[in-house]
Amino acid sequence: MISVEEARAKLYDLATPVGVETVPLAQAAGRILAQDVSATRDQPPFAASSMDGYAVKRAEVELHAMFKLVGESAAGHGFAGRVGPGQAVRIFTGAPVPEGADFVVIQEDVTARGNLITITDDPGDKDNIRPAGGDFRAGDTIGAPRRLRPADIALLAAMNIPAVPVSRRPQVALISTGDELVMPGGEPGPDQIIASNTFGLKALFDAEGAQTRILPIARDRVSSLETALNLARGADLVITIGGASVGDHDLVAQVAEGLGMDRAFYKVRMRPGKPLMAGHLAGASMVGLPGNPVSSMVCGHIFILPMLRRMMGFVPADPQLKEGQLAEPLSANGPREHYMRACIGSGGLTAFPSQDSSLLTVLADADALILRPPNDPPRDAGDTVFYLPL
Amino acid sequence: MISVEEARAKLYDLATPVGVETVPLAQAAGRILAQDVSATRDQPPFAASSMDGYAVKRAEVELHAMFKLVGESAAGHGFAGRVGPGQAVRIFTGAPVPEGADFVVIQEDVTARGNLITITDDPGDKDNIRPAGGDFRAGDTIGAPRRLRPADIALLAAMNIPAVPVSRRPQVALISTGDELVMPGGEPGPDQIIASNTFGLKALFDAEGAQTRILPIARDRVSSLETALNLARGADLVITIGGASVGDHDLVAQVAEGLGMDRAFYKVRMRPGKPLMAGHLAGASMVGLPGNPVSSMVCGHIFILPMLRRMMGFVPADPQLKEGQLAEPLSANGPREHYMRACIGSGGLTAFPSQDSSLLTVLADADALILRPPNDPPRDAGDTVFYLPL
Repeated sequence: MISVEEARAKLYDLATPVGVETVPLAQAAGRILAQDVSATRDQPPFAASSMDGYAVKRAEVELHAMFKLVGESAAGHGFAGRVGPGQAVRIFTGAPVPEGADFVVIQEDVTARGNLITITDDPGDKDNIRPAGGDFRAGDTIGAPRRLRPADIALLAAMNIPAVPVSRRPQVALISTGDELVMPGGEPGPDQIIASNTFGLKALFDAEGAQTRILPIARDRVSSLETALNLARGADLVITIGGASVGDHDLVAQVAEGLGMDRAFYKVRMRPGKPLMAGHLAGASMVGLPGNPVSSMVCGHIFILPMLRRMMGFVPADPQLKEGQLAEPLSANGPREHYMRACIGSGGLTAFPSQDSSLLTVLADADALILRPPNDPPRDAGDTVFYLPL
Repeated sequence: MISVEEARAKLYDLATPVGVETVPLAQAAGRILAQDVSATRDQPPFAASSMDGYAVKRAEVELHAMFKLVGESAAGHGFAGRVGPGQAVRIFTGAPVPEGADFVVIQEDVTARGNLITITDDPGDKDNIRPAGGDFRAGDTIGAPRRLRPADIALLAAMNIPAVPVSRRPQVALISTGDELVMPGGEPGPDQIIASNTFGLKALFDAEGAQTRILPIARDRVSSLETALNLARGADLVITIGGASVGDHDLVAQVAEGLGMDRAFYKVRMRPGKPLMAGHLAGASMVGLPGNPVSSMVCGHIFILPMLRRMMGFVPADPQLKEGQLAEPLSANGPREHYMRACIGSGGLTAFPSQDSSLLTVLADADALILRPPNDPPRDAGDTVFYLPL
């Protein structure tokens, strides 16, 4: 048996970078920036007023000073001339500060009468001017890799970058296996259940940036598995669910090998989700996940999301654990790393009493997976633990 | 001036529920469940083995006990008969436990020879059986409203719910205003800048569940604003950016009133983002946001995302603040609620030195907005503050 970290390292070796594509800015949100991009201009491109008011010379600013209005500078329409001694230009927020002026008196501090203005309130020392290039300068970069958040999208727009180099979406093909499975909406026989893993995993992977296809369920026959695996062609990552254990009905590894897979089979020292199969198949990476609903979802978080992040060139790729306090004590852990479904309350983290890997209701109610290292001793309420937010 | 909370309450009054639509399960991830849904079956639908092994009668289980193999129960193919005294049925994980059996001896504890098996290792007390309905029962519900996460999608699948009632996506129309604006990819004149707010806000709103259209930039002319506002028809929420202040060039309120808007104009006691316009226009809600890039994004977080959540029937709709420690001291706050861009490090929260509302770079670097209440006194490193994660 190998550790979770060792298993993840082996999966990283299978995570081939997906390459770069260019998408329009309006479609870049949430994508991973794949190459540094540079501003094509300064922002602001000129010294700009931060207030509505009057642009004047700072040396002339004092209470009761009078100025003659000689023009206007509005956003998009600057004042073409120069502000001379004793002159003022009406100016609006965001408008270029005209040449000759180096101070904006806010309109609340001024009384205007016809063509004359008088400073009638203490204008203070603040010049109310944003210097040219104060936000960014041409050539300033946004560094890759970076998951583009709304503020990044606004910044890219301001930098006049209308198309953005991002990592291509990894194409994932999901195959669930087993004679017991029926698609949602189907009519299960008395010994059958509804396929749920593929739907949960698709939601998980797509939210991370993948494009996931759910393939037909593979039955427990060689020909059915071959059909499904052949339908997966073109994917960057093929994931099978179930049939990767040691029972008599576990055909996936055998069939995949028949199709040319160079297979590794890992027993991972973890709960839930012990068996894991991985290899290369026809140019794609392939991973076999356990079939228990919770095991497959936990393995999705612990192994597949990190692989997808690697494929998209995103760092850090490992799950980002947080520290938190236990609200309730925990008994000692066994020899396997245990990911315990838990909820986060005002008093801290509480693990659910039942951690059976078949219980999807408990996973749906959980906010977090508490990480228990192998042989972790009993823990008290108030102890600090690592957890993965869900 | 009114408080942020008062302004949000007024905006909630404008947030009309968008109603319900039914989407296929594979497209329901991230959507808001709009009506309670109920499982149509028990899970598991039968008592199921949790291990690969042999189904027998518990009363007969002891070290060295021998059993005669009478059949097999595989996932999807149960054993049709009944397990009698001295009999065992080969069983696989997830398969139905046959009638007459109430214990599964795991295969590692058994030696099989031909048709006979012998228990050759202590089988323990655990029956390795998952009871019927142990995860959920027919009629068990998932309660609305709830944002559907991957585990929920898996659970809905297991419940055999192939189509899901979710809140319709609010249709948002975004109009930026101003002669100074040029779309990304355009060639700005010397007094112009690139429109960035609409792109940042679209990313923000779409991630929350909206479908956002960016409309043509409205110029500082009545006819141009009328054109843009008419193009917004059909939207649930119309948002204008800029032109809602008190300067001479602020036409939006005037034009919107001309088109029949019942307008309210709020000065909100907050930084950044003081002026806010809101009302009804031709069956839609309309909000005017300030034009400064950071102000518009902060108002998006503080006002518009809560409105969208309300429109989708999601509770709680208010921004979910967290508590954190300051890594660096903060000077006293003025009379307005201040949302300070900050980054989160291992030592806690550090506000950026410059909080000017024109600096998009500072917003893009920020992980959090620290909330300073009006007239908040100076704060020391280590003090607890509220913040909104970004």
